[in-house]
Amino acid sequence: MNTVELIKKKRDGNTFSADEINFLINHYTTGQIPDYQFSALLMAILLKGMNTSETAALTNSMLNSGKIINLSSLKGYKVDKHSTGGVGDKTSLIIAPIVASAGVYVPMISGRGLGHTGGTLDKLEAIPGFRTDLSLSDSMKVLKKCGAVLIGQTKEIAPADKLIYSLRDVTATVESIPLITASIMSKKLAEGIDGLVLDIKTGSGAFMKSQRDSINLANSLIKTAKSFDKEVIAFITDMNQPLGNYIGNWLEVYESIRVLNGEVKNDLYTLSIKLAGAMIYLGKKVKSIQEGEKIAKQKIENGEAFKKFLEIVDLQGGNVNYIINPGKYPRSKFVKKVRSVNNGFIKEMNTYQIGMTSLELGAGRRTKEDEIDHKAGIILYKKIGDYTKTGEVIIELHSDSRTKIKIAEQMIIHLIKFSNTKPSLPKLIKKVIQ
Amino acid sequence: MNTVELIKKKRDGNTFSADEINFLINHYTTGQIPDYQFSALLMAILLKGMNTSETAALTNSMLNSGKIINLSSLKGYKVDKHSTGGVGDKTSLIIAPIVASAGVYVPMISGRGLGHTGGTLDKLEAIPGFRTDLSLSDSMKVLKKCGAVLIGQTKEIAPADKLIYSLRDVTATVESIPLITASIMSKKLAEGIDGLVLDIKTGSGAFMKSQRDSINLANSLIKTAKSFDKEVIAFITDMNQPLGNYIGNWLEVYESIRVLNGEVKNDLYTLSIKLAGAMIYLGKKVKSIQEGEKIAKQKIENGEAFKKFLEIVDLQGGNVNYIINPGKYPRSKFVKKVRSVNNGFIKEMNTYQIGMTSLELGAGRRTKEDEIDHKAGIILYKKIGDYTKTGEVIIELHSDSRTKIKIAEQMIIHLIKFSNTKPSLPKLIKKVIQ
Repeated sequence: MNTVELIKKKRDGNTFSADEINFLINHYTTGQIPDYQFSALLMAILLKGMNTSETAALTNSMLNSGKIINLSSLKGYKVDKHSTGGVGDKTSLIIAPIVASAGVYVPMISGRGLGHTGGTLDKLEAIPGFRTDLSLSDSMKVLKKCGAVLIGQTKEIAPADKLIYSLRDVTATVESIPLITASIMSKKLAEGIDGLVLDIKTGSGAFMKSQRDSINLANSLIKTAKSFDKEVIAFITDMNQPLGNYIGNWLEVYESIRVLNGEVKNDLYTLSIKLAGAMIYLGKKVKSIQEGEKIAKQKIENGEAFKKFLEIVDLQGGNVNYIINPGKYPRSKFVKKVRSVNNGFIKEMNTYQIGMTSLELGAGRRTKEDEIDHKAGIILYKKIGDYTKTGEVIIELHSDSRTKIKIAEQMIIHLIKFSNTKPSLPKLIKKVIQ
Repeated sequence: MNTVELIKKKRDGNTFSADEINFLINHYTTGQIPDYQFSALLMAILLKGMNTSETAALTNSMLNSGKIINLSSLKGYKVDKHSTGGVGDKTSLIIAPIVASAGVYVPMISGRGLGHTGGTLDKLEAIPGFRTDLSLSDSMKVLKKCGAVLIGQTKEIAPADKLIYSLRDVTATVESIPLITASIMSKKLAEGIDGLVLDIKTGSGAFMKSQRDSINLANSLIKTAKSFDKEVIAFITDMNQPLGNYIGNWLEVYESIRVLNGEVKNDLYTLSIKLAGAMIYLGKKVKSIQEGEKIAKQKIENGEAFKKFLEIVDLQGGNVNYIINPGKYPRSKFVKKVRSVNNGFIKEMNTYQIGMTSLELGAGRRTKEDEIDHKAGIILYKKIGDYTKTGEVIIELHSDSRTKIKIAEQMIIHLIKFSNTKPSLPKLIKKVIQ
């Protein structure tokens, strides 16, 4: 096979065979196809698309570029959740202990934040001592012991994806449904799972701005998962405002603790219960998602979910004292309360820019090399539909840098729109696709 | 400006400003944009296109990446010809002396053969001693002295084109009309010409297989040339069979000598007269292309064109003895006459594959590093419309390798189709666009 001829084939809108896809992925992974040829191919794929069987073959090829974890020694179903990422989305921290406490294994491989979105790994690492870089064998021990483990992508898992993703990031070839599908599914399938719950975000803070694109991605992911005999449920959920009220790594751990403690019943709680319910259902513990949700709620009420969270943190090296007494955690040097200059209802939030403001405060990364300040971030006192009076605090900004606070304050006031009449609230769960 | 954002812009079908194009070309040429980003951009350009002003800006940016030859010290018009390349196309060797002998300067920068097509530089270098690598100042001296010079692209001329072309070649991004236009025009405009005659080949042996694509390319080239105030005439000409009867570097020099001597009046002669006529017209020596053709014919009849060819060869270091006595030139070790196995008319020739057969015999290059055997090639005794009897010689194969001859013999017999009735002849000059 000839690389240039294969690029030409996709460029001209033709369909690859599984053998051709294997050739391309294997030769790129081993360095026999240079970056400059592969990026031209990626652009051709983005613009000309891939059909269902090509996407499945691509996923398979990327999956087989690395190790597939064998969890057959663990009796019981293994289920994971994947979110396409948004602002304030810390459901993984809440779901993993709920589902594990319900007796379903949760082998969770997560990513880091980049740009406006946070990453589960960064949030977990805000807990002093917490290790997300466990070896596969250590991860297996944690999973076996407490029913859940939360780690990062190791070198052994889908190395082709890691390589390809880095190239996509710098060649404007991220926004391709088949490429996104293969990237997500190759990693998730490598976890050795039986089922997967997908949380596809849509709206101003999501990668997929339109609901149509989100549904297309969900369908592509479901078809691919099914071709590997995995059970999957996809939720299209709202990202027109941040999820929950806390943004920033430790701040999000703190909010997760409060949800797990049963102290908070906001949108974050609602979505976590829904996703955990679907995972418990896929783990064959109940006969419907609704029954699963019921169990999820019980696990919070009876304290088992919180206990499980402590167990996970402890087994992964984290200091549980900060989870038990979050007040002990260091606070940012500067905390600025931003007050409303209007009377009125909050109508709209530019969620992407709120994420970028959090990054500006120190909570995120512009490039992969940037250091994160785990304490930094934003607290939202109000969300869409809430009424505020002039002078009332609507937002709190946390940072160790006075300059960053000033910049963030300037940014944030333009990102929230008010109205005199109560606006219709964005629907949190827009669609469930099975 | 941000490279990824610019790639995204073209990917999404938007139009670049001249500043954006300058940024991209300058940063690529200086190595600040890596190959893997530029190849993704090239694929996006190929698939999303560029409008007339983008193409002109791209040409301008590539032109200005190098030196523009200043020919203002030479009094009189400077006109060149560019062909998109085909099999057996040696018109440059015939045209340059004709037009120079008519008093129009011909500063010609040519390329090498790659794949199925030959290149003017390789043909000239078949003449022992002939140097195509003259410096710009030496080239100027030759041009001044005899009215024509035939050299290769120097490092000083459009270096961006050289870089970009190498990348296009290995990333399946050659077949893009705006990219082809900018590549051709940036080099031609750097020659300091006043006018340009274009020979756009169409048919089984051309890069542009369809006449529609050829016309689109011609229009793009003409629009771009006009935006630089250059006069241009484009001919769409047939490449459904090789041009002339000789293919291979020295064999093509030999056929050129015969045309310049007035010994041969085949399709090669007809097209050479037409193109030379248009060049003489653009050089303001006559009032119409037809009058130019008349002069071109005269220059062959009165021996001035042949004399001019000797002068050019001599000034560029070539041994004129081989031009005066071509019989002295070394012959291939093996010459195989291929005979017809049919009675009938030749109806079709797979010109691309005939070019590839010539390459197989040693006349061409598969990669840029391949060595050429200047003696090797093919002589066609018959062309489309000619009647042949069983056993009659239709083709002669020349090579130093018996194995290559055998392979070529196997290939060539499948490349010619016969019919019992006289087929309609392909029209040599399909369209003239001004």
